[in-house]
Amino acid sequence: MHFTSEQSLDADVLERRFTLGDVPGILWTSGSEPAPLILMGNQGGLDRMYSRLAARALGTVAEGYAVATVELPWSGDRPRSADAEQARADLRRAIEAGEPVAEEIIERLILPLVDQAVPESQAALDALLALPEISDGPVGTSGGVLGISLRLAAVDPRIAAALLFAGSYVPRVMFEEARQVTTPLLMLLQWDDEGNDRQMALDLFDAFGSKEKTLHANMGGHTGIPAFEGPYANQFFARHLK
Amino acid sequence: MHFTSEQSLDADVLERRFTLGDVPGILWTSGSEPAPLILMGNQGGLDRMYSRLAARALGTVAEGYAVATVELPWSGDRPRSADAEQARADLRRAIEAGEPVAEEIIERLILPLVDQAVPESQAALDALLALPEISDGPVGTSGGVLGISLRLAAVDPRIAAALLFAGSYVPRVMFEEARQVTTPLLMLLQWDDEGNDRQMALDLFDAFGSKEKTLHANMGGHTGIPAFEGPYANQFFARHLK
Repeated sequence: MHFTSEQSLDADVLERRFTLGDVPGILWTSGSEPAPLILMGNQGGLDRMYSRLAARALGTVAEGYAVATVELPWSGDRPRSADAEQARADLRRAIEAGEPVAEEIIERLILPLVDQAVPESQAALDALLALPEISDGPVGTSGGVLGISLRLAAVDPRIAAALLFAGSYVPRVMFEEARQVTTPLLMLLQWDDEGNDRQMALDLFDAFGSKEKTLHANMGGHTGIPAFEGPYANQFFARHLK
Repeated sequence: MHFTSEQSLDADVLERRFTLGDVPGILWTSGSEPAPLILMGNQGGLDRMYSRLAARALGTVAEGYAVATVELPWSGDRPRSADAEQARADLRRAIEAGEPVAEEIIERLILPLVDQAVPESQAALDALLALPEISDGPVGTSGGVLGISLRLAAVDPRIAAALLFAGSYVPRVMFEEARQVTTPLLMLLQWDDEGNDRQMALDLFDAFGSKEKTLHANMGGHTGIPAFEGPYANQFFARHLK
């Protein structure tokens, strides 16, 4: 793990860019006391999404966590994949045509991404949990590509709390993995999000094997999650990570 | 409104029984400063349900509210209705036989109850809001028979926040009324409650016309609502009643 740059943000937050192998990432911490880590997901393209990611990270660091995010495969400055580009183009075409998105498109879009991203996230966890500013205890995940959070929760016992944002596609073949998940989870669903498959999200929530799982559904579109969900998410993480 | 008895409970809470016409009820208050009112629902039979109702009321009073509940028609010490008894017997028979409950049974069970209970609840509000210990402002409703909360929210503009517990039957003919509701609402759904029609609850949540509506689904049966929902409900009421 190599730190490539650092800057101080407000409220005593240190933001450091790093690379792990050829995977870039960003780490936000405050102070030198070890804090529990929340691995924040993204939709690919750290620079493009920077302001939103930093805003979320600052809010979470203020609650006493360290926050990290890593670039997705084939996104941002990382090498492209022809198959991933094709799957994205097919998805866009189906949405623009107002057609239901075929399951095989979702599989081509998500399954290779999950296969590649999950080991990268686990390698990032290995390196991050070795830092003195991060406590070597339970880890939370927050948002990002739903399939990645699902696989991570299923395979990595360090994940003790998963905050999931319904709204990215999950192939039906992954529902079997969801049944293996026992991690406490909170899933946020925007009820009238037109770009979202509500029934898929409800079916997935149903499939998770976790004994503690909570669904919060609210009105509004994809970016309209109400402000009052912020404290709820904090309470959820505090119950499981502190 | 006649107060018929009073006793002091712990934490400076005064519990008073009252009758309004021939409808008995219970009021819990603390101190003499006017507090916003939460009308707490019940499933009929105040004496039978007393300990659970008092426990919920004490928790709510501690958050700075006055809490009242009134006996349902044909329940507790109130005169029985042959039609209501028949509808309850038919419901029980269907459930014991493992059959789906016919819509006409739900209609016979709920519609006359709503027609009778809602004006009684409104009369109770008239009397309660005139008390100096209760602020003459927005009112919350919490739990009880879902159809009653629905109709109250639809017809009474004093209701500014409704906490709904999915789990009692709502006739499909009332879904049209749900579309008229604009009251902010929080619906709690026990996801794997076997005595509950999950799809009906999701359809009803979808039908409500409220711009702020939130669904919280958790694991566990009818009485297994997790303790962490308590603070969430308090925050919901605080946003709308204080």
